[in-house]
Amino acid sequence: MKLTLLFGGASFEHEISIVSAITVMQKLSGFTLDFVFCDQDHSFYRIEASQMKAKFFSSGDYKKSPRLHVTRGGFEQRGLLGTKRLEGTVLSLIHGGDGEDGSISALLDFYDIAYIGPRKEAAMLSFDKAYTKWLAASVGVKTLPCEVLSRGELPGMEYPIIIKPARLGSSIGVSVVKEAHELSYALDVAFEFDERVVIEPFIAGVKEYNLAGYKGAGGMVYSIVEEPQKQEFLDFDKKYRDFSRSERAGAAAIDEALRKRLQRAFDALYTPLFEGALIRCDFFVIEGEVYLNEINPIPGSLAHYLFEDFSACVRDLCAHLPRPKRPRVSYQYIHSINQAKGK
Amino acid sequence: MKLTLLFGGASFEHEISIVSAITVMQKLSGFTLDFVFCDQDHSFYRIEASQMKAKFFSSGDYKKSPRLHVTRGGFEQRGLLGTKRLEGTVLSLIHGGDGEDGSISALLDFYDIAYIGPRKEAAMLSFDKAYTKWLAASVGVKTLPCEVLSRGELPGMEYPIIIKPARLGSSIGVSVVKEAHELSYALDVAFEFDERVVIEPFIAGVKEYNLAGYKGAGGMVYSIVEEPQKQEFLDFDKKYRDFSRSERAGAAAIDEALRKRLQRAFDALYTPLFEGALIRCDFFVIEGEVYLNEINPIPGSLAHYLFEDFSACVRDLCAHLPRPKRPRVSYQYIHSINQAKGK
Repeated sequence: MKLTLLFGGASFEHEISIVSAITVMQKLSGFTLDFVFCDQDHSFYRIEASQMKAKFFSSGDYKKSPRLHVTRGGFEQRGLLGTKRLEGTVLSLIHGGDGEDGSISALLDFYDIAYIGPRKEAAMLSFDKAYTKWLAASVGVKTLPCEVLSRGELPGMEYPIIIKPARLGSSIGVSVVKEAHELSYALDVAFEFDERVVIEPFIAGVKEYNLAGYKGAGGMVYSIVEEPQKQEFLDFDKKYRDFSRSERAGAAAIDEALRKRLQRAFDALYTPLFEGALIRCDFFVIEGEVYLNEINPIPGSLAHYLFEDFSACVRDLCAHLPRPKRPRVSYQYIHSINQAKGK
Repeated sequence: MKLTLLFGGASFEHEISIVSAITVMQKLSGFTLDFVFCDQDHSFYRIEASQMKAKFFSSGDYKKSPRLHVTRGGFEQRGLLGTKRLEGTVLSLIHGGDGEDGSISALLDFYDIAYIGPRKEAAMLSFDKAYTKWLAASVGVKTLPCEVLSRGELPGMEYPIIIKPARLGSSIGVSVVKEAHELSYALDVAFEFDERVVIEPFIAGVKEYNLAGYKGAGGMVYSIVEEPQKQEFLDFDKKYRDFSRSERAGAAAIDEALRKRLQRAFDALYTPLFEGALIRCDFFVIEGEVYLNEINPIPGSLAHYLFEDFSACVRDLCAHLPRPKRPRVSYQYIHSINQAKGK
């Protein structure tokens, strides 16, 4: 089975996308892989498997690779001796902007290229932390209360609070503020990354559970539930290492009833909006209630470490991708108007 | 000033987009215009001004026109004698799918092409009637109560109700249901066009007011308020004619206080999400309260008929378009990891 790993993108998460792709390639077996790198100028390059090393990109060496063009049905490599086309389903590993904001999805759908990843609506709603709360509320999944601030506005919530740029993943720009004097710096940091900032109560020691899944041939497939390593929260450096995780995770010690409740919340959020994607939902459990913290529509290294047979999951997904439905244009209105005019 | 009218698209509103473009070209003065047609297969063609007639498209004659390719910075026409590039700002007139769902916006932003039109988030939120209600609620603008149904589900609301596909404009698939026996057919019609259907109470004789506007050099610019021609609601045939309106509309007989309230609601919805676009908001006024009915992020013929000097508005908008901000990638994390490894 042919598969094209797409990674890079013009975003703050460009580098972790490279790390993620290098990790995922090592976890996929039974595929013929191609590698497509999107650089920060939105040029696409075809990368050899042997060149899939972080330094190849950070050094700029990738620019010597063949350029690719997005055309109907696939990426195309043009040369003096003709045109080659990458035929595999695309597996999008572009985290953050471009990938998780729906741009790449819109591009791939527009050009009729099959891909594993969130469709554009799903990406855009989960990329923005305020929109995610609207989505969760509409399907009956709880989230923490929040305030959305623009520059110059101040939160009204009691401390401690957590401050997040509305539209970034990987903990970039996130701070916990416990006292008033820490506020101004934390807001400055968050506003460096976005024009809108989300404020939530910060609950120390909250139970956190991560669950990944997708819809395959036999319906929903869920990963194990992981209780992520406890730190106050994962900062960018730690998350960065998280994207290169290679070991399988251990399952959280939770009872069957909670596992089912997490799965039901996941299903409510996933179906049908996220069909075609393997996503990870991060939940809090507070006083016995399940709260959605965030949806990762393209989780780091595609959360391979939560699945027993990751390659089988990707094969299953490839065979069950939604394809855009396009109405055929009949020109019946223009015809009827022309007839009415006697043309 | 150079301007490229982009129209067509793979959607149920393909034909009205053609009509819209033909109307708008006649209303623009002082521009050097190019015309780019997106056909239902997502191929782009460069159209001569003299060919801008509905029949040129419905007959398929457009296929003899030069093909265009989307490349960084603009549409490109490749020929034996070299490559020509269209340099003007794009004015997107692709209504419905592709245009109003954010696909074309994502494509133009990805390739760094300046355009008048909603950015992808704005398009996607206003294209879906359920998401529009979330947006309105978040900025304190009222909407009618609604139910969102999937196939097989039945409304719980009292009759009369109005049934709309969640994601179509131009009244396609919309029905008013006054009695239970009309329900099943109306749902079938709506589900032909979308997998989700929105149900609202139908209020006969409700006051409806349309207001268009955009953000230009001097802040918000509002059109006159129009009270659209009263019919139970505009069906597709009537809307179709609406897209080819060429006469200026008359201002509704409303007092200054109501005009200001409509403008305030418009501003709350528009800023900052819709910056770069000229949109039309359709409001209801019920018992003295303003309700948003829908947002048209690319209104038919760009609502030129509501503005005194439409060409001046387009020039103003062209000079005040938001441009995507892209973070520069420093590779500092990959560098620091390689240093730690001693590479």
